[in-house]
Amino acid sequence: MSQDDFDLRGDGREPAGPRLWRNARLATLAPDRPGLGIIEHGAILADRGRIVYAGPQAALPSSLPAGTQTIDLDGRWVTPGLVDCHSHIVHGGNRAREFEMRLQGASYEEIARAGGGIVSSVKATNALSVEGLVESALPRVDTLIGEGVTTLEVKSGYGLSREGEIRMLKAARALGNIRPLRIATSYLAAHALPANYRGRADAYLNEVVLPGLDEAHAAGLVDAVDGFCEGIAFSPAEIARVFDRATALGLPVKLHAEQLSNLGGAKLAASYGALSADHLEYLDEDGIAAMAKAGTVAVLLPGAFYAIRETQAPPVAGLRQAGVPIAIATDCNPGTSPLTSLLLTMNMAATFFGLTVEECLAGITREGARALGLLAEIGTLEAGKSADLAIWSIGSPAELVYRIGFNPLHARIYKGEETRR
Amino acid sequence: MSQDDFDLRGDGREPAGPRLWRNARLATLAPDRPGLGIIEHGAILADRGRIVYAGPQAALPSSLPAGTQTIDLDGRWVTPGLVDCHSHIVHGGNRAREFEMRLQGASYEEIARAGGGIVSSVKATNALSVEGLVESALPRVDTLIGEGVTTLEVKSGYGLSREGEIRMLKAARALGNIRPLRIATSYLAAHALPANYRGRADAYLNEVVLPGLDEAHAAGLVDAVDGFCEGIAFSPAEIARVFDRATALGLPVKLHAEQLSNLGGAKLAASYGALSADHLEYLDEDGIAAMAKAGTVAVLLPGAFYAIRETQAPPVAGLRQAGVPIAIATDCNPGTSPLTSLLLTMNMAATFFGLTVEECLAGITREGARALGLLAEIGTLEAGKSADLAIWSIGSPAELVYRIGFNPLHARIYKGEETRR
Ligand SMILES: [Zn+2]
Ligand SMILES: [Zn+2]
Repeated sequence: MSQDDFDLRGDGREPAGPRLWRNARLATLAPDRPGLGIIEHGAILADRGRIVYAGPQAALPSSLPAGTQTIDLDGRWVTPGLVDCHSHIVHGGNRAREFEMRLQGASYEEIARAGGGIVSSVKATNALSVEGLVESALPRVDTLIGEGVTTLEVKSGYGLSREGEIRMLKAARALGNIRPLRIATSYLAAHALPANYRGRADAYLNEVVLPGLDEAHAAGLVDAVDGFCEGIAFSPAEIARVFDRATALGLPVKLHAEQLSNLGGAKLAASYGALSADHLEYLDEDGIAAMAKAGTVAVLLPGAFYAIRETQAPPVAGLRQAGVPIAIATDCNPGTSPLTSLLLTMNMAATFFGLTVEECLAGITREGARALGLLAEIGTLEAGKSADLAIWSIGSPAELVYRIGFNPLHARIYKGEETRR
Repeated sequence: MSQDDFDLRGDGREPAGPRLWRNARLATLAPDRPGLGIIEHGAILADRGRIVYAGPQAALPSSLPAGTQTIDLDGRWVTPGLVDCHSHIVHGGNRAREFEMRLQGASYEEIARAGGGIVSSVKATNALSVEGLVESALPRVDTLIGEGVTTLEVKSGYGLSREGEIRMLKAARALGNIRPLRIATSYLAAHALPANYRGRADAYLNEVVLPGLDEAHAAGLVDAVDGFCEGIAFSPAEIARVFDRATALGLPVKLHAEQLSNLGGAKLAASYGALSADHLEYLDEDGIAAMAKAGTVAVLLPGAFYAIRETQAPPVAGLRQAGVPIAIATDCNPGTSPLTSLLLTMNMAATFFGLTVEECLAGITREGARALGLLAEIGTLEAGKSADLAIWSIGSPAELVYRIGFNPLHARIYKGEETRR
């Protein structure tokens, strides 16, 4: 996050006045409580956008701040505001035509000849201004907001030029200004090798990725540095060069690793103390051990698993056993996961990967926050954190995972203020 | 449909005045046009709730009815209002707890001991009055309405007693009165054998299913008769007894067939000229041929396929080759498909079954209407049919299938009138 995002309200509005939500059932996700950290008869007090108290209603501080507005939640459930910790939601165009051709039996070669693949997203993205990118992303972002998302990670990676990557990051930051939403950016110039650098990955790093990172960082546009470590993208040695520069700049790293094959990307990321390694279908024991040791979060992306009809699930049992924190995210992107629902992401993580209800809900709150390095600020209902809440019309938290294509959000609170937009 | 549903507006409101939607792109689904029946520069004229004209704007009748209200759609796409032709959306309770237990590794026996399975839905359903059933179903129904659904099939089948089945059908009819929505009911007392009839399926048919059908039909509550033909439910011979009675009453039939095994249910249904056979993962060549000959629609239900992690897909290539019409539906039910999105159903049908974009869109419009015996009334944009429209903010119809968890509905028109609720 850039510095001013740590203001109570980075959007320049007045901080929210004191508010008390009472008669609530809380899933606090607080790590000092078991499971979901449930408090059946709970209340939350917030002031100036921060949680002052989240706990049993019976133990509320006896004197409330002057002018406290009280909201009776009538027994509704409250979770932390949702965190989507892996998205490529800023991009131009869509790949519906390519999707359609594939269903008609077109080969990847035919699709490429018709201008499909990531190349088409790069072209469509680079055809847009910052404002155009924002406008294109807004309907998708608003869908997430409508589900209670209060923090959204946004990656660059469809510019593949210094200017293109920076435009994407500026659009990401702008989303956080025009919507009540916390944005965390990841610089992902090492996403794909553009055609004009074919066979010259080092030149692409030297001329685009590394100087572009310096420039974007100087402009305050980078919260973390990401890469795509895969046969069709960048080798571990190439990713290491990017991570070295990130480390020199004091920026945390994360990595798309072991999605289609095992190149040891997760282990490499862990050796840099990465916030997260993401995808991980082909992760091995070594990688799990390295992640556990480094505290690197496993970000699982069931939307991409589903859309590309992958059959190998990530090693969830091994991750659990080693104590690797597990987050889940939409991976919202035009090619392999045009998904804009964190609720559906939970259902898919349960259905495809066997995550429990608790793991799913932790994965889009506490662990999503951890994967962004923001756990001190968001991700649980605890005093001192930002008052980001999702309030649900449900009978039990399991319903959030169980239903498919249903949104029971009652209200969304961002920095103490109720607003969907 | 009961007779009064064939009134222009069965809900007693005034018929809608003349309206013209211009500057539209139409996916008419009209069978005399190829593919989606696309008209790029289109217009639709409706009066008294019926489509008067749907075609090229340039060929609009030169004189419009007096007082025609004109709506400029700014190039937006229009499809027929969506048809969800297979749902169990009326039911009490939910099975979130069972879902949660399964993820924690509970066996089916443990779940049954904890009161889970269909028994729990029967109990929760029978605990509610007609009003309670309506109230419980409304959030799910409203989710479908919010996606442009204008016709919804609703099955009984969680009562498993004469009174219980009739309460469910009354609730289904009530939904069509309190929401701008066409309801088609299916009588599904032959859904599961209640415990008190264990080993006495014929007694259940004699005492509940058959007299209950007579009674429900006499009350105008039955549009079609359904059954579940499966090892865990009813045999073909038992289903034949139900279908004989339906035929004697002049009611069309449909059948849950070949979902988990091949009992020849589809062939049996076809021999009764069934409107549809549904699920069909284990359908064989014989069944396909019988369905093709009878004109029985194959209703595919990818939500259930997904939720139970089925691996055998229905024989789509065989259905295509034989010319069997294919519809798709949510199968919205609390146990094996708690799904309330027809848009997501399309994406799943494409992803899991390889249906093309055209097949998906036809499956939730024209073929869904055919599966309900309502093709003369709804399902395509053609003069004479009900003016049920879905208007979309999309660049191409493929986007409706391609996106996952995204709803680009701009407006929904039911019987010529814009309303989401
Ligand atoms: Zn990604
Ligand atoms: Zn069914």
